[in-house]
Order: sequence, then C-alpha cells, then structure tokens
Amino acid sequence: MTSPALQIALAHHRAWTGKNLETAMTYIADNVVLDAPPGRLAGIHAYREFLVPFAEQFLISAEMIAAFGDDSTALLMYDTETIPAKSAPAAECVTVRGGKIVHNRFIFDRLPFEEFQRRRASDGVR
Amino acid sequence: MTSPALQIALAHHRAWTGKNLETAMTYIADNVVLDAPPGRLAGIHAYREFLVPFAEQFLISAEMIAAFGDDSTALLMYDTETIPAKSAPAAECVTVRGGKIVHNRFIFDRLPFEEFQRRRASDGVR
Repeated sequence: MTSPALQIALAHHRAWTGKNLETAMTYIADNVVLDAPPGRLAGIHAYREFLVPFAEQFLISAEMIAAFGDDSTALLMYDTETIPAKSAPAAECVTVRGGKIVHNRFIFDRLPFEEFQRRRASDGVR
Repeated sequence: MTSPALQIALAHHRAWTGKNLETAMTYIADNVVLDAPPGRLAGIHAYREFLVPFAEQFLISAEMIAAFGDDSTALLMYDTETIPAKSAPAAECVTVRGGKIVHNRFIFDRLPFEEFQRRRASDGVR
C-alpha cells in the first residue's frame, strides 16, 4: 500500500470503528469540511459531533469492502453492523493534506436510521 | 488507467448516465448480484429494473468524484443531480469477471427519494 492518503484514511477508520475516538480525531484537520447526507459541516468540532454519537451509540462492528487511494485522495467502502440496521454500508472519499483529512465526502443511507428514530419516538409515546 | 475492472465500470457508468441504457446493460452479467439499499437483487432483469427508472425518470446529470480499481474490483463515487434531489451522491463497488459486472455493492441515501415520493403522494390526494 503506497498511497499516503489511504494510510491516513485507514488509520482514521480503524481508530473510530475500534471506538478509539481520541485517536481517530488526531487524523482530522481543524478546518475539515464534511459533506454528509444531512448537508455540509465545517470544522473539527462539527465532524466530531457527527461521528462520535454514531460510533458510541449505534456501531457494533465494521468490515472493509474496498479501499483505494493516491497521493491526496482515498476512497473507502465498508459495511457496518449497527443497532438500527444489521447492514449499514457507507463510502467515504477523503482528501488528505499534511497528514490530516481536510475534506470528506460521506455517503450512507439515512432511511434505516430515520425509521429507527421514528420507531423509538412512537415507542416513547405509548 | 490500467485497471481492467475500472475500465468496464467507467464504460458502464458513462453509458447509463448518458442515458444509453442498452449500451450500459451490455456490461452487466446475466447472473449479476446487486446489493443496493432496498436489499439484494439477482439477475440482469432485476438490475435493469433498478437502474432504468432512475436513469430515465430522475437523473439530470452526473459528475465523477473519484474512481479507482484493480484487476477485478472498481470503486466509484459520483454525484448526481436528480429531480428529487439537487445532489444525490452514490458509490458503487463492482466486481468484474470476463469483462462483465458480476456484483455491485451500491450505496446512496434513499431519504430524499422517499420524501419526494411522499410529497408526490400527498399532492395526488389534494
């Protein structure tokens, strides 16, 4: 594996899916931009707020499907088992500069998570 | 670009996003397996039923974000402008054998499409 961007992306991925969130966040640039399904989030604080609840409350396990990269870009696809959905795959296209992730285009299907929240809300009403 | 799998994946992608569905389907194996957000679909007929309505009814344009591959696997991420959503990105991890796509792991966010159908249904009721 000779892609510097892929090495950073995989180190970040291993850390957060292993629930080592402090380590995971060391790979994220302060001025990171995250384009995720709910919209654009800017800055490391917003990135953390996006990632940590998923990793800590929903994630059971993760398995890499494919990972490629070049000098500045890495593209990952992986599956996750989560509390809301047995299979919740995601893809990330990250841009790395100076050893840190400065941009992440993040794709996943929000529908099972929305349905889970809806079920939880209607359970709370009963 | 030296990845045979990526060449097939990109030829398929260019064809269907260019609305040349007949050409696009020539890159799909008869016994293809498609793991998409709604679940697993098997066979070229089911693949076509999944792809064609999206390409013909919803797709306005597509733009590649990143594409990588090796001998047998290609990983693509692209954005699409669609009628339901101005930005509806997707990722595909395809396995190629004998010049045809035999497996595709397809990720996109179903939520904007579900919301669009819901709006359309409620418009129909008025």
